[in-house]
Amino acid sequence: MADTSSLEQLIQALRRLPGVGVKSAQRMAFHLLQHDRASMRVLAQALQEADARMRHCALCHTFTEAELCATCSDPRRDASQLCVVETPADQAAIERTAAYRGRYFVLMGKLSPLDGIGPRELGLGELFERACDGVVREVILATNFTAEGEATAHVIGEALRARGLSVTRLARGVPAGSELEYVDLGTIAHALVDRR
Amino acid sequence: MADTSSLEQLIQALRRLPGVGVKSAQRMAFHLLQHDRASMRVLAQALQEADARMRHCALCHTFTEAELCATCSDPRRDASQLCVVETPADQAAIERTAAYRGRYFVLMGKLSPLDGIGPRELGLGELFERACDGVVREVILATNFTAEGEATAHVIGEALRARGLSVTRLARGVPAGSELEYVDLGTIAHALVDRR
Ligand SMILES: [Zn+2]
Ligand SMILES: [Zn+2]
Repeated sequence: MADTSSLEQLIQALRRLPGVGVKSAQRMAFHLLQHDRASMRVLAQALQEADARMRHCALCHTFTEAELCATCSDPRRDASQLCVVETPADQAAIERTAAYRGRYFVLMGKLSPLDGIGPRELGLGELFERACDGVVREVILATNFTAEGEATAHVIGEALRARGLSVTRLARGVPAGSELEYVDLGTIAHALVDRR
Repeated sequence: MADTSSLEQLIQALRRLPGVGVKSAQRMAFHLLQHDRASMRVLAQALQEADARMRHCALCHTFTEAELCATCSDPRRDASQLCVVETPADQAAIERTAAYRGRYFVLMGKLSPLDGIGPRELGLGELFERACDGVVREVILATNFTAEGEATAHVIGEALRARGLSVTRLARGVPAGSELEYVDLGTIAHALVDRR
């Protein structure tokens, strides 16, 4: 592109972002260098701070800067309900409906045998321990309605029912094959009410 | 999304990248935090180094870490030919054809009156000064074949012909409406040979 290594290294570093190919990375690098030096410094600092400060909530596993996340620290949340989601984005989608006042367990992924992600890698043992704490009365499976999300819900549901827990699944109001974070709020709210 | 400011700040910082919306920024942030902490550090450092080290070549205006870029420093390049391009990416596309051995002037943009970018903002005065240095015999206009690129070529061509210089334009082999960096090498090479 040009003859200088710091430009080439910036392009290569931008390509590490998911969904960014070489053409996009070049455009990003040129735009930043030519028109938006301030954003280079802002983004560099944000990356370093997030890397240094973000860890996982000890209780629900979502991202947090503290030992416990805000939801887990909130005494007004109903501890008898535990909603299992794949990602913080899915959790946020459910929170935006304001239709759920229980607690969460964020898998931070899903079962994906082809990628080597089994029950152990996904930390299902910790979920089962949490669900069997004697306080949780109902586990709501809100994994995505994709093949992998359904398989994940199936495995968790079977294991928790075997432990005598009440397990429900978001109702079929959510269109099959879709991912929660892209579903409109009304559909998610309806699926929460109609959970089975 | 989650309750912590460093995650939200990372998402907002990623949104400053051209072409990245809020959903993409969220996916990038989650992917980095969950699966690729190393890339966070690599990208932060690359941003800081490029910001600190990259400046513009004193002669052709492309990005460089030195006073002069490699092309301008190369004594084997023919100083009697000056090729005018919009961006370093366009320059790189021409270099890949190996059909041109002259020098360059990189506009780092194009005339765009609606965005407030006129001849002064684009630094055309420096181009005219360079083209009239007594060494340059031919100026090859290789701006993109878009409406703005054509207008830019027209303005530069008129001004340089008025100063008695020989001005050519890449041949019409390049499909109208397209941008150079996406054109196949053979087409660019042919357009160079057939320049008019
Ligand atoms: Zn938590
Ligand atoms: Zn140069």
